[in-house]
Order: sequence, then structure tokens, then C-alpha cells
Amino acid sequence: MTEIIRVGVLGAGRMGKIRVENLSRMPGVEVAALATPYSSEIYEWARSLGVPKVTEDANEIFQDESITAVAICSPTDTHVEYIQEAAKRGKHIFTEKPIANNVAETIQVLETVEKAGVVFQVGFNRRYDSNFIKIKELVSSGELGDVHVINISSRDPARPRIEFVKHSGGMFVDMMIHDFDMIRYLTDSDIEEVYAYGGALIDPRIGELGDVDTCVAVVKLTNGAICTIDNSRETHYGYDQRVEVFGSKGSAYAHNKTSHNVVISTKDGVEKDKPLYFLVERYMDSFGLEIREFIKALREHTPPIVTGSDALQALLGSVAAQLSYKENRPVKISEVV
Amino acid sequence: MTEIIRVGVLGAGRMGKIRVENLSRMPGVEVAALATPYSSEIYEWARSLGVPKVTEDANEIFQDESITAVAICSPTDTHVEYIQEAAKRGKHIFTEKPIANNVAETIQVLETVEKAGVVFQVGFNRRYDSNFIKIKELVSSGELGDVHVINISSRDPARPRIEFVKHSGGMFVDMMIHDFDMIRYLTDSDIEEVYAYGGALIDPRIGELGDVDTCVAVVKLTNGAICTIDNSRETHYGYDQRVEVFGSKGSAYAHNKTSHNVVISTKDGVEKDKPLYFLVERYMDSFGLEIREFIKALREHTPPIVTGSDALQALLGSVAAQLSYKENRPVKISEVV
Amino acid sequence: MTEIIRVGVLGAGRMGKIRVENLSRMPGVEVAALATPYSSEIYEWARSLGVPKVTEDANEIFQDESITAVAICSPTDTHVEYIQEAAKRGKHIFTEKPIANNVAETIQVLETVEKAGVVFQVGFNRRYDSNFIKIKELVSSGELGDVHVINISSRDPARPRIEFVKHSGGMFVDMMIHDFDMIRYLTDSDIEEVYAYGGALIDPRIGELGDVDTCVAVVKLTNGAICTIDNSRETHYGYDQRVEVFGSKGSAYAHNKTSHNVVISTKDGVEKDKPLYFLVERYMDSFGLEIREFIKALREHTPPIVTGSDALQALLGSVAAQLSYKENRPVKISEVV
Amino acid sequence: MTEIIRVGVLGAGRMGKIRVENLSRMPGVEVAALATPYSSEIYEWARSLGVPKVTEDANEIFQDESITAVAICSPTDTHVEYIQEAAKRGKHIFTEKPIANNVAETIQVLETVEKAGVVFQVGFNRRYDSNFIKIKELVSSGELGDVHVINISSRDPARPRIEFVKHSGGMFVDMMIHDFDMIRYLTDSDIEEVYAYGGALIDPRIGELGDVDTCVAVVKLTNGAICTIDNSRETHYGYDQRVEVFGSKGSAYAHNKTSHNVVISTKDGVEKDKPLYFLVERYMDSFGLEIREFIKALREHTPPIVTGSDALQALLGSVAAQLSYKENRPVKISEVV
Repeated sequence: MTEIIRVGVLGAGRMGKIRVENLSRMPGVEVAALATPYSSEIYEWARSLGVPKVTEDANEIFQDESITAVAICSPTDTHVEYIQEAAKRGKHIFTEKPIANNVAETIQVLETVEKAGVVFQVGFNRRYDSNFIKIKELVSSGELGDVHVINISSRDPARPRIEFVKHSGGMFVDMMIHDFDMIRYLTDSDIEEVYAYGGALIDPRIGELGDVDTCVAVVKLTNGAICTIDNSRETHYGYDQRVEVFGSKGSAYAHNKTSHNVVISTKDGVEKDKPLYFLVERYMDSFGLEIREFIKALREHTPPIVTGSDALQALLGSVAAQLSYKENRPVKISEVV
Repeated sequence: MTEIIRVGVLGAGRMGKIRVENLSRMPGVEVAALATPYSSEIYEWARSLGVPKVTEDANEIFQDESITAVAICSPTDTHVEYIQEAAKRGKHIFTEKPIANNVAETIQVLETVEKAGVVFQVGFNRRYDSNFIKIKELVSSGELGDVHVINISSRDPARPRIEFVKHSGGMFVDMMIHDFDMIRYLTDSDIEEVYAYGGALIDPRIGELGDVDTCVAVVKLTNGAICTIDNSRETHYGYDQRVEVFGSKGSAYAHNKTSHNVVISTKDGVEKDKPLYFLVERYMDSFGLEIREFIKALREHTPPIVTGSDALQALLGSVAAQLSYKENRPVKISEVV
Repeated sequence: MTEIIRVGVLGAGRMGKIRVENLSRMPGVEVAALATPYSSEIYEWARSLGVPKVTEDANEIFQDESITAVAICSPTDTHVEYIQEAAKRGKHIFTEKPIANNVAETIQVLETVEKAGVVFQVGFNRRYDSNFIKIKELVSSGELGDVHVINISSRDPARPRIEFVKHSGGMFVDMMIHDFDMIRYLTDSDIEEVYAYGGALIDPRIGELGDVDTCVAVVKLTNGAICTIDNSRETHYGYDQRVEVFGSKGSAYAHNKTSHNVVISTKDGVEKDKPLYFLVERYMDSFGLEIREFIKALREHTPPIVTGSDALQALLGSVAAQLSYKENRPVKISEVV
Repeated sequence: MTEIIRVGVLGAGRMGKIRVENLSRMPGVEVAALATPYSSEIYEWARSLGVPKVTEDANEIFQDESITAVAICSPTDTHVEYIQEAAKRGKHIFTEKPIANNVAETIQVLETVEKAGVVFQVGFNRRYDSNFIKIKELVSSGELGDVHVINISSRDPARPRIEFVKHSGGMFVDMMIHDFDMIRYLTDSDIEEVYAYGGALIDPRIGELGDVDTCVAVVKLTNGAICTIDNSRETHYGYDQRVEVFGSKGSAYAHNKTSHNVVISTKDGVEKDKPLYFLVERYMDSFGLEIREFIKALREHTPPIVTGSDALQALLGSVAAQLSYKENRPVKISEVV
């Protein structure tokens, strides 16, 4: 009979709630406590899912020895502290990305975690999406041959609030980091050099903050493959998430996902469904799969698919992109480590 | 605070398991007992989902007054007895389709249920699929104008076992019944006449049983619309579930659903994913939505989308189709009531 | 060096013009004369294409012994006379469909033609469309296995003028005849029985003429395959020309053709091009290929793909459909020969 | 009545033949002479199309005063001489791209042409493709809003012979030049800066020649839009020609064109047609439209869509890309004029 795993969840924002819902439905898993600022709505909701304790004090989770794993879904600026605290107490850790917005802290955290010897998984959920899993399989099986070119178009449906932009770490770190991770995931190869460019084409206030809302990058991998990324903060038509891998034997292209497959033909045109609009709709399945993977890693002592090192490498891509944009020159990863 | 609804589930085959899983995850719902032939595997699985009682005796469910609703997922030949038993005891009823394979029994059951005044919903799950909901919306909103033609292609991935065919009630009743219901659902109109034709083109043993494995029908509706249905027991390429509604203003076409949207281009061709293969993969979302609808109907005293009368009308379509096939002539619904 | 083939064209309506244009561009072919009612515009146009003679008298073509082939593109009610006149004089014949709107005349014409021993091709141009050629290849190569079901949706973009309907021979003869030919072309099998149904759902004036504007048919072939056809006189969204062949190994589905492949995504939806709207746009390539095939048949003494017998069989399908519709019963082809 | 325009064609390679075929079918146009090295096959072919003179001496075309326009389809290294000779004699000029492989000669040629005051059109045929015309319309009408990002994937089906690569001017000049022209065509904006990168990932012999077979570029336009281009010498699956324009209101994506629209579903997968394979199949329609445009420009004194200045700007993009690749830094157009 499998032992019950008791998990503490930190944060009950959009992602925290998804994690609690997924964990509480998993056989052999118990959400033992949820740490979050008090609201009666959250209490009600947590109780309906059978979460026995809701607290404002994260320490109640860290100090509870029966809790052997944590899911850190609180704001980014708490990640470093919470990860270190959990690691010190020997708790396994799932954390939303990023570990931190700068390289030095990230490296430091990874050292702590490694010393602690706990399972550590970072929430690059896109690795668990059926489209990208399929492409990964095609690359791994050799069906596409050697990878020559990767093209990623990754665009948000609607611009973020300016308040969010201020604390986001910048578009290269906040948004393009996913694409750096995707490139590494699909190829099992590392980033060597990045050339990035962008502009505030959507909202001039973003430009005034020194950030961009539209950007592209050329990424060179150690295996010789060349990648392009384009990002935008606002499509209007949905969450645009396309990836193409082109290799010596052919191409695999992941088109967007939709909520239905109905095509409507009238005198006005032939119309199909728009891409799934919100992050949560688009990637709901992947959130479930990645947290299941974390629990599996705990139980079976298998390595998680997204390691701390992966998170660091993706961040290095972002930091190189940011520097490249500022100095308008290609930047090697080795410059930013 | 909402009252907990205690549900008894009868049957733990493919559908019974899905119902238990969905019900046990629903806030405010408890699967109070599961009636099914004993197996240690089932006991283990039920316990992991928090089902407190597993019994071989369906009466333990019927006699438990704290159980106010049942989900009947047992073999078809038990449906009539279980529905009547539940109705007599004032329990609300969700039943897999069909109520019965013949019209007389179906009518009798519906009378019992009506007298009992309980909520009664039949599992025509396709009404809860996002493709068909979208088409229904387009018809209802008038975007397609008056409905002129409906074309349905509905095909199973792999032929059934001969044992199954023997007890299936025949292809028109077992399979085409879904399409008769679909037509009525999409149009809010009734079937007037059916012309059906078929053959045992896939497996001669099916022909020896007097059944067909490939069939088509022309269906005339009371609102003047004309429909075609084609059914097959074996595509090899997946569960083929396409519907087109063509009206005075245009057409809506529901294409198949797939597990990913990756298109692969090589010297051998351009390939995309096959339709979802199994019933369960294809319609998993709809199973969840329909059972949720049943619980909602209980709580909010709203009528369920699929009533007993709907189930009867779909069966009449099937019976007319069967007669039409046997006599090679169009058959009016009024002939088979 | 190949001999120049001198062709006389009868009729300069939409199809006559297309035939002249295609023939006048073909190396080794000369449009020697065009018979058509006088208009200065036609004269000008014919001259610009190098046609040396335009006449109102068809006999000038029939009597010219240097003209060895004719293309009959004049109104349907002239076909019988012109075909017979040409056959008697030993001229090879390409004629637009139909030979005649009734079976007796068609059979009589075919006898005359056969006695004359001339090449005789009927303009069922859809056999030369790349979509349907591809499906034919897949059927012939066995890639789809035995054919079980064929579904054809064939719909005009805009309703015809009432004047046209009056002289059209009725929708089953004027329009569905193409689909009967398509079925025979794709399967190399013959029609055995037809059940047809229809209504005047678009324009009541068509109903007052005893005709329909929307119709479907179930067609049984001698090889056991079962077909459905649906026809409409008005889609608004384009010339809807789809065919699916479903066999024991899989399915081939011909989607509509468009003028471009651009997909537009905005907040209002994801839109692609409508099907090519007019007959002429949709089937222009096929017109060129079929007339080239006719010239090839002349030169190389190969049989044309569409023979007189094919035209007769398609007409028999139409006549059976019409009778079926009138008597609301399935009709065997053997009843209408 | 329109005057007959007599055209001399120089070169009878793949493009020369297409030009002769298109011109000889155009009403009011005569191919008066064809200059090409002698072969009996060419003579036969030219005669069948009614070309009265075939000569090995290009001067016979230049000296014939009745010839008022030339189409230059001979090898690239003859373009400069032929254009200048034609211009001096006041003949209108259509020339295949490029004018020359270097900037200085191109500028010099343009000056000669401008002084001569003749019509001058360069064969950037993609501007006449229905996909790209549609996108251009969407940009011009404002339907996509301001252009933010353009992504072009432009890939050849099969690698060229090494002999060809040696004289091609390099991949950036030979191949990417089309994409620089496309960007300018779609946006009516100019290139400001280019960052390019590439490698010999397909054929090491191409690398030994100092050339690449796989390359990408980031292109910044004067209107602020940012473009990515990826080129490959070998897809195996067809001529891959995709363009996306993403703007402040949405996106337009041109998918590849195919020869048919049949989708085949079997146990092995769901397959559709590969992109049209050869340049000539893919762009045949555009070749006809662009030469018609040239004749129209002559007759109606309208400016051709592709001017000499356009050809120069596209070349500047290529030259900047080449320099960028060599020095691994972004290069401004102003550096290479």
C-alpha cells in the first residue's frame, strides 16, 4: 500500500489554486496545509476540497514534519526564501518559475537545494503539453533528422497591466524564458549565443519603463541548430503558442489548440475557432501532468523532467537576450554566467 | 451551505468507473455506495476514491434512504428493473442509454418515472461535447438560417466482438440511436420518416446474425430538414465523429478531435494526428459535463437536457430504421410507436 | 510531324468560349470555325484568338470536310441533332453534358455514334479535377481497401434564375447527374438502386414548378458500396464540392479548393478563404484537361475517359432518383432503362 | 484596336521558356525573336508556338527596331550588358532577378535605364502570388493594424548542385533576396538593419565554398516592424513558402499551396498533400501575371509593381545580411550602399 504524501502549498493565487485542485484529487496525496493571506472565500474553497488547514503563516508548513513536500506558488520575490527554507528542512520542492529573476541568487538557491538532496522541480509546464511532447518525441526518435532550425511564435492574448510590467523582470525574463526552456527541452542541446531585438510597439508606457512588448531573438545552440523566437504581449485573438522544428528529414509544426473544431461557412467567410485564450485554458492539462510528475518523482525517486539546472539555463538565455537587446549585439551565454 | 448529495452507482464497467470518478470529485457530492460483482481490484480502486461501501447487492443501494440519487451503469438488460426500482423509492435517476431496446418497455418505464416525479436523465453524452454544443448554438442563434440538410458520419474505430453484436440490439439500435438523438438535439425538431440501408461489408459473421456493420439513413424531420447518417463499425483510423448542419445562411461542420495539433512534413507526406481513437478519450469531457448537469438538475430543479422522452424518440428513429432496412422502404415514425 | 486537327465549335456561351480558348492554345489544333448567333463582341473576341470563321449557320461546320472534330457547346435541346449530324459526317465529337434529358433519345444517339465509329466524349469535367483524380487513384491502387461508403456534398453557390429551372430537366437530372457520374468514376462500379428525397426549401417558386432545390439520395452500387449524395442550389459561401470515399482500409476526403491559403486571426475569429465561388473558377483546370484528353483520344486512338455509355448510366441514375422522389420508394436502375 | 507589341526574348532556359509561352498566348503580343544557343529541340518548340525567328545572336534582337520590348532570361552574368544594350536602344525591359550580384553595377544599370526612360521591370514574381497579394491587401486595408512582426519561412525542396552554388552569389544574395523583397512589398517600408546567421548544416561542401545552406535573419524596418526570415536549401517535402504578418489587430498567415485537397485517413495516420514541389509548379500563376503586368505597363504607361529601385533595395538587404553573417553583428543598410 502506498504511503500518503502530505503536501503544503504556499500561495493561493491563480496557480496555487490549480495546484491545490490537482493535488487534492490525486490518490495517495493530501494537501495538508495552505499558506495564504486570509479571505473567507479561500477558507470556504479550501474546505470544500478537504484541505484541513489554512494559515497566514508559511512557517506552519515548514515546521510541520509530517509535511514532506511543498508547492511554492507565492509571488516571485518569495521564491528564494521559501525554497531555501524548505530545502533546509528536507522537504521536496515544486516551485513555479522563476526561481529568481537574477542569476546569482538562482545559482545560490540551486546549491542549497543540491546539498539538501531533495527533489526539486520548476514549473515549466509547457514541457507537459501534448503538442510539445509530440515534437519532442519526433526529435528524439530521429524522425526529423538533425535539427537545423526551430521557430517559436509565443504571444499573449492581452497586454498585462502596467503594474505587472514594473515587477515582471522585463519581457525577456518574464516571457521569453519559456521559449529558451522549450528550445532546450526539444533539442537536449544548450544555448550558446543569443541575438535579441524588440520594441514597445503596443504600449508606449511599457517603453517608458525601459521594457519592450514585442521582441524577437536568434538563438544558436551548441549542436549547430539555429532558432528564432518572436514574442508579443497582445494578439487579441488568443494565446498564440506555435513551435516548428525543422530538421534534415523534415518539419514538425505545432498549431494552436482550440475549444472546438467547428468550421462555419457563410457568405462572410469560412471561420474556425480562435486559439484558446487564457493561459489556464490553454495549459490546464499540462499543469495536471507536471504536478503528477512531481509526485511520481517523490515516490519513485525518478528525476523530474524540469530540474533546477534547466531553470538556470533558461534564465541565462533570458539574461543574454536582455543584454543583447541593450547593446544591439549577439551575446554568448558564457558572458552572463 | 449546500446539502451533500449521496449517490449510489450501479455497475463498475467502463462507464460506471467514469461516473464514480467524476462524482467523487464533485464538491457536495458523495458516492455513498457502489453495486458491482466483487473483485479485489474494484474494492481497492473504490476505496482510493473514498467510496465507503462496495456491495454485490443492488438492493443495499435502493433500500438506503440517505441515498437520494442513482447512476445506472450496469448492463442494458438490468436498466428497466433498476430504473423502476429507483423510481418507486423516489430516487433521482441518471441512466446510461438505452432505457431498453424495445419501445413498449421504454414507454412503460417512462410512465413509472413520471409518476414518481423524480429527476430522470439519460446518457446521451454527445450533447455535452464542445463541437456539438457549438453547432447547437449556431442553429439556435439563427446564424445558419433555417436548417436544410444535416450530414452525420459516425464510425467506430474497431469492430466489436461477435458476442457483443449478439446482444447489442442491432446496429440501428445500438449505434445509430446516437445520431437520431443528435439530429433532434441540434434542430429541436422531430423525426417524421426514415429510410435506411446497410450491409455486412466488414465482417460476414455480423451478416449471419442478421445484423449490418455499415449503414446509412435518410431522415426527414417535421420542420422539413433532410438528414443523412452513415455509420460504420470499423475505421481503423480512429473514432470518426463528424456532423455538418447546412442551412439557408451557411454551414457548420464539426471536424474530429485529436490529441495534438502537430503537423509533420517529410518526403513521405504531410501528416497530422488521427482522430481520438477510443470512446472514452473522445468523449471524456462530455461525460464529466453531463453528470455535473444531472447534479445541477437535482439541486436547482432544472430539467435535464436529455429527458426520457428524448430517449424514446431516438429509439423510435432506430426502430423505424431497422424496419426500413428490413422492408427496403421509407418508414414513418407513426408506424412504430 | 503531327497533323493539324481542325475543330469546329458550336456555341459560344460560357462553355463554348472556354473550349475555344483552350483549343486555340493547343499545339497542332486549330479552331477552324465557330457557329454562334452574331454579335460584334463575339466576332472581335474570336478574331483575337485566331479563329478564321464565325458563322450563324452550324451547317457550315458540318459541311466542311477539313473539319474533323466538333465541340458541341450549344443549348441542351440542340445536342441530339448536332451529335447525330456530326456522327453521320464522320466527325469526332466532344459534347457538353447531357446528351439529352431523356433516356430514349440518349440511347438512340449512342447507337448512331457507335455506328459512325467516331470518337465520342461527354463533358463530365469533374473527372479531370485534381481532387477527384487523387481519390480515384487511391481507390484504384487499393490504398482504401474495398469501398464501403461514398458521401458527396455538391452544392451551387447561388440559386439559378427561375427561367433556367423551367428548362433544366429538374434538379435530379441537371445537377445530381454529376454525382452519379462521380460515383461510377471513382468505383468502376454500376448503380443498382436509388432512393431520393428532396424539397423546395430555398425558393417556393421552384416547388411550384414541381422541382426541388435541396435533395439527397442513397445510392446502392453493384459492388455493395452505399453512397449518399446531398445537393443544394444555394450555399452563399461558394461552390461546395466535397467527396469522401470510405473503405475497408480508410477514408479519403476531398475538401474544397480556394483561391489562396491565407488564414486571418483577429479578435473576431480565425478566417480562411471561401471555396472558389463559380463553376468556371472551380473547374477551369479540369476543362483544359478534358479537352486535351479529347484531342489525345483523336490522335492516339485511345478511348476517352468519359464515354457515351457513361453519360447514359449517369442519366439513368438521375431518372431513377426522380422517380424515387415522386413515388417515395427506392427505384432500381433496371426499372428505368 | 490595340497595336501589336513585338517582344524579343533572350534565353530559353526554364524561365525563358515560361516567358515565351506566356507572351505568345497574350492577345496583341508577338514573340518576334528568341535568342538562345542552337538546339533542334528549341527550334521545334519555338516554331510550334509561332515564334518566327530563333537566333544565337542577341544583337539581332537589339538591332530590330520593330521589337520594342525585351525579356531578359539569360544567365545572370549577361544581365548588365543586355539591360544596358536594350536601354540604349529605347526598348522596354523585363529582366529576371537579379540585375547584378553587386551593388555598384546595379546602381549603374539603374542610372542607364532611368536616362533611357524605358519601362523596366524586375522578376520578383512572388509579388504576383495570390497568397501574398491577399496579405498585402490585408496590410494595406489596415485590417491587421500596424505591422509589428513578419515571419518568413522560405525553403527549397532539394539542395542545388555544387556547380550552381559556386556561381550563385551566395545564399543571402541568391535566395534571401526574395524575402527582403517580400518584406518591402508587404509593408511599403524600407529595411534599416539586418542581423543574419547561418551554417552549412546540409552539405559540408557548401561550407567549404564559404557559403551556407541554412540561414536566418532578423530585419528591422524603418516603420519599426521586426522581421525574421529562415531559409533552407533542402526540405525534402516540397517548396516551403510561408509568410506571416502579425500586426496590432491580428495576424495573417499564408500556408503552402498543394496540388489537391484530399485528406487520407488510415491506421497509419491522417495525411494531406505535400506543398507544391518545384518553383515552376508553385509559382506558375505568378509568372503569367507578372509578364502580363509588364505588357500592361507598356500599353497603359502605368508603373510596374517591381521597379529597379525595388531590386536594388532587396539586393542591399542581401549584401547587409552577408556582411552581418561574416562579422557576426547587426549591419545597417546605410553601411552597404
